Amino acid sequence: MGKGRLEAFSDGVMAIIITIMVLEMKVPHGDGWAALRPTIPVFLSYVLSFINIGIYWNNHHHLFQAVRLVNGRILWTNLHLLFWLSLFPFATGWMGENNFATTPVALYGTVLLFAAIAFTLLTRSLIDRHGQDSPLATAIGRDLKGKISLASYALAIPLSFANRWIACGLFVLVAVLWFIPDRRIEKILTD
Amino acid sequence: MGKGRLEAFSDGVMAIIITIMVLEMKVPHGDGWAALRPTIPVFLSYVLSFINIGIYWNNHHHLFQAVRLVNGRILWTNLHLLFWLSLFPFATGWMGENNFATTPVALYGTVLLFAAIAFTLLTRSLIDRHGQDSPLATAIGRDLKGKISLASYALAIPLSFANRWIACGLFVLVAVLWFIPDRRIEKILTD
Amino acid sequence: MGKGRLEAFSDGVMAIIITIMVLEMKVPHGDGWAALRPTIPVFLSYVLSFINIGIYWNNHHHLFQAVRLVNGRILWTNLHLLFWLSLFPFATGWMGENNFATTPVALYGTVLLFAAIAFTLLTRSLIDRHGQDSPLATAIGRDLKGKISLASYALAIPLSFANRWIACGLFVLVAVLWFIPDRRIEKILTD
Amino acid sequence: MGKGRLEAFSDGVMAIIITIMVLEMKVPHGDGWAALRPTIPVFLSYVLSFINIGIYWNNHHHLFQAVRLVNGRILWTNLHLLFWLSLFPFATGWMGENNFATTPVALYGTVLLFAAIAFTLLTRSLIDRHGQDSPLATAIGRDLKGKISLASYALAIPLSFANRWIACGLFVLVAVLWFIPDRRIEKILTD
Repeated sequence: MGKGRLEAFSDGVMAIIITIMVLEMKVPHGDGWAALRPTIPVFLSYVLSFINIGIYWNNHHHLFQAVRLVNGRILWTNLHLLFWLSLFPFATGWMGENNFATTPVALYGTVLLFAAIAFTLLTRSLIDRHGQDSPLATAIGRDLKGKISLASYALAIPLSFANRWIACGLFVLVAVLWFIPDRRIEKILTD
Repeated sequence: MGKGRLEAFSDGVMAIIITIMVLEMKVPHGDGWAALRPTIPVFLSYVLSFINIGIYWNNHHHLFQAVRLVNGRILWTNLHLLFWLSLFPFATGWMGENNFATTPVALYGTVLLFAAIAFTLLTRSLIDRHGQDSPLATAIGRDLKGKISLASYALAIPLSFANRWIACGLFVLVAVLWFIPDRRIEKILTD
Repeated sequence: MGKGRLEAFSDGVMAIIITIMVLEMKVPHGDGWAALRPTIPVFLSYVLSFINIGIYWNNHHHLFQAVRLVNGRILWTNLHLLFWLSLFPFATGWMGENNFATTPVALYGTVLLFAAIAFTLLTRSLIDRHGQDSPLATAIGRDLKGKISLASYALAIPLSFANRWIACGLFVLVAVLWFIPDRRIEKILTD
Repeated sequence: MGKGRLEAFSDGVMAIIITIMVLEMKVPHGDGWAALRPTIPVFLSYVLSFINIGIYWNNHHHLFQAVRLVNGRILWTNLHLLFWLSLFPFATGWMGENNFATTPVALYGTVLLFAAIAFTLLTRSLIDRHGQDSPLATAIGRDLKGKISLASYALAIPLSFANRWIACGLFVLVAVLWFIPDRRIEKILTD
């Protein structure tokens, strides 16, 4: 079973998610700069989510470079990841329209956490299919960055009720951490 | 005539359907957990439809692994399937926003039934093109799962007027039945 | 210059058009069959447009089977076709929501006419690139079906002001004419 | 690392942007020509943006013909371009719905400027990867058209506050300049 359609379908879903999020930025009714002001928090939450989906696309792209075999479990763990990513437009819109209020920030963190868990499960199902000493498994290694992300999101959810900006800061921090693309797989494949 | 563009177009349509369904989950106006409550039935109907479209994508993917030849009839039976799938966002939204009321549940069942019929017709047109003793025909076999699905949906529509939860239970049951990916085609192709 | 990305981009745009049209079918507020009634004309206009876009995708697919070479003019005549197709959701929604009123029917006919002109221009640019005695040019031939379509749409626009149902009848007639997929190209390629 | 998925993802995002822009053209409530009148400026701004996204797709397509190698920086400069392009539906809708008022025109110019800067940065990252004497670098050359575009947009933003039609004229002028597809890369690749 080829990986071509899985990649194409995932690309399609991620391309649509990243683009329809912008529809939450409703066109304001007035025509001056003042009319744009309420759009600013929606815009900021959009930027954060665009970067996050961009990171997922990048990592998915890197990961599947090393994939040789696909089975039913991989198809479903991949769809499971896409499910959580598909909730980004909702969570982003709610957080932006409520000016980063506590509960929406906590929900956004929850969606981030489950997406990160889903990515980890996808990684696991791929390693199981390719073997513990496959280039793929070596490339992923201990997956330190993945573990830090999971811990940060899990921490951010309760912290958002203490101070929502700490939670937002953690979201940004994890994004910065991943912004540098994952060279592990590239390196090992080159070797 | 190649199957490449048919697969790409179907992937595109299914990726968009699965993603725009989430737009029916309107961003609530308040910012507390209470504001999220009316979203819960919409979310549940979204999860059910996400899994259903996921199953269709999975089965489509498996089916076309064994496809070698495409003709005009196949293009149209495939478009016919995509038509019924394209009604999922509407039926899902109506069912979710009305808290799984009787008539919307019956309509949802009707869309499921016609999508299942369309998939059967697509399967037939593929077998007709490839021959009764092609690997494709052998792989599909008696298509027991397909027949159970058709019967369940046909049963669920009238039953929804007796008790809508029985109908919903049938929808979930069929989804569970298909959740396990179709190994028949994989097996025969491997042999 | 390859035709791969042109096909992929066109597939993407047509897949999105065919799917977002359904968003014009707004989820009704009530939960009974009565609430669905105002949706019926919107649904009927959606079915007509789904078939029309399906026909364009089918013909595009058949046409590009025979394409070997792509140049700047072809890229732009193709984008020009996609532009007119992109107006289908708007024209379909307006016609459906106004219960096939005269002016919306005339506008729908206008969009159909310009899309048909655009397809003819695309065909011309492809023949110019491949030569008058290329398989592509032979396959297209006198393009009788294309000319009948152009004439029917041009006729339907003024006729819609006399009787809008005659115009709608012409739209359906042309769709039926094209529903039978274009075997000309298939035949000549096989020879 | 292959360029296939980068092209597919970019095609997907651009196909969606070009198509969802039309959703800003809200279906009018009346059914006469008069009801269409408020849609005219929205339609005109849509046409301008359709052509602009078409130009970006065309140039992206030409550019990547000559691309052989992809790295992390290229993935991100490409995503950065897609980010600015994703703001077109918002900027287009705001400009159209406010009948080309001063501030929306200035914002539209700003989005155009940043998209042009992003395209230049993408070009730079590609040249850095392929070398100063690669066919790609030779094909891009001094990039006069790119520089004229950047200057025109930068000029249009302040000018829009003097006279918004001058700014709009500049937008159209740059579009006309690019409308003629980029033959530089084609030529050099043929040599």
